[in-house]
Amino acid sequence: MRKGTLLVLSGPSGSGKGTLVKEYTEKHEDVFVSVSATTRNPREGERYGVNYFFLTVDEFKKKIEENGFLEYAQFCENYYGTPRESVEKKLAEGMDVILEIDVQGALQVKENCPEAVLVFTLPPSYEILRERLIGRGTESMEVIEKRLSAATEELRQAMKYDYIIVNDKIEVAAEELGAILVASKCKKENNIDFIKEF
Amino acid sequence: MRKGTLLVLSGPSGSGKGTLVKEYTEKHEDVFVSVSATTRNPREGERYGVNYFFLTVDEFKKKIEENGFLEYAQFCENYYGTPRESVEKKLAEGMDVILEIDVQGALQVKENCPEAVLVFTLPPSYEILRERLIGRGTESMEVIEKRLSAATEELRQAMKYDYIIVNDKIEVAAEELGAILVASKCKKENNIDFIKEF
Repeated sequence: MRKGTLLVLSGPSGSGKGTLVKEYTEKHEDVFVSVSATTRNPREGERYGVNYFFLTVDEFKKKIEENGFLEYAQFCENYYGTPRESVEKKLAEGMDVILEIDVQGALQVKENCPEAVLVFTLPPSYEILRERLIGRGTESMEVIEKRLSAATEELRQAMKYDYIIVNDKIEVAAEELGAILVASKCKKENNIDFIKEF
Repeated sequence: MRKGTLLVLSGPSGSGKGTLVKEYTEKHEDVFVSVSATTRNPREGERYGVNYFFLTVDEFKKKIEENGFLEYAQFCENYYGTPRESVEKKLAEGMDVILEIDVQGALQVKENCPEAVLVFTLPPSYEILRERLIGRGTESMEVIEKRLSAATEELRQAMKYDYIIVNDKIEVAAEELGAILVASKCKKENNIDFIKEF
């Protein structure tokens, strides 16, 4: 059985990475989107196992000790992490797995799983990113400016990624995501056993 | 204007690389398939500019001196080469270009154009390659055995390629070829200017 591809997707707030994953998974059933674990409290409407696995700090720390995360980090007192078991199980079954995580987590995953494919998504321009964040109308200008400066910082890390998807038209971006998954399976590195057997 | 992708396709005789290119180009008009130049005599039915550009030895040598080939080689007294000008023109116009050439030529191209994407195509197994060559019914067993031993030799070079396409179902193989072209455009290395501008 051929292993699935582990695809890590990052991008600044406003890059539309959530919409991109949704667009892709609606058309492709053979992909598993990992759900993160967190110690922060659920917000209204958030459901266990759908938005996050909500854990206590003790539960989270126990899982860290058991090497139960592919990556984890602490932000503002709260822990966030990618549960290892479900991801490895799906990959072993030959399913592709998408992790939608931040840059710091993505680079941890790449260190632990060098075969992971890192994709960074961006809007077509800085101005459009700014407009998208303002257009949401849910955040103060102060928060927006903070997000923009975080985006600039993250962008430096984009140079460590394998692929860039410019998220302009969502159907095109989703097609590119699919192409990256298909092309990854064709990579020489993933076919060495086949060549040797041949 | 974004440059096109230079895709080099190789594979042993019987790997179906010609059929693969045909299948892909029938569905995609925005790709240019380069026509090689040769000093060998045209076979029956072969047309100038369609199968090959048929040149005299003097014409070919002059073109070599003018740096007019992306790659060239001599086999059994005859020269074969990829004319540089048309390829570079199409790439500059943003068109993808496919070169269907042998391993030796492919590695020359990679040396001259490191951004070229090298794809090696193979049938699902050695037995199927053998059956395909016998099934053609056009060659003696001696020639077939020679082709098979050449294939084994070429296979060693496949490790220097970027991608492997297992040519089992032609539609799947053509889809993979397309995915490799799309994914290549998304490669970080091909988006550094965009990231910097952003």
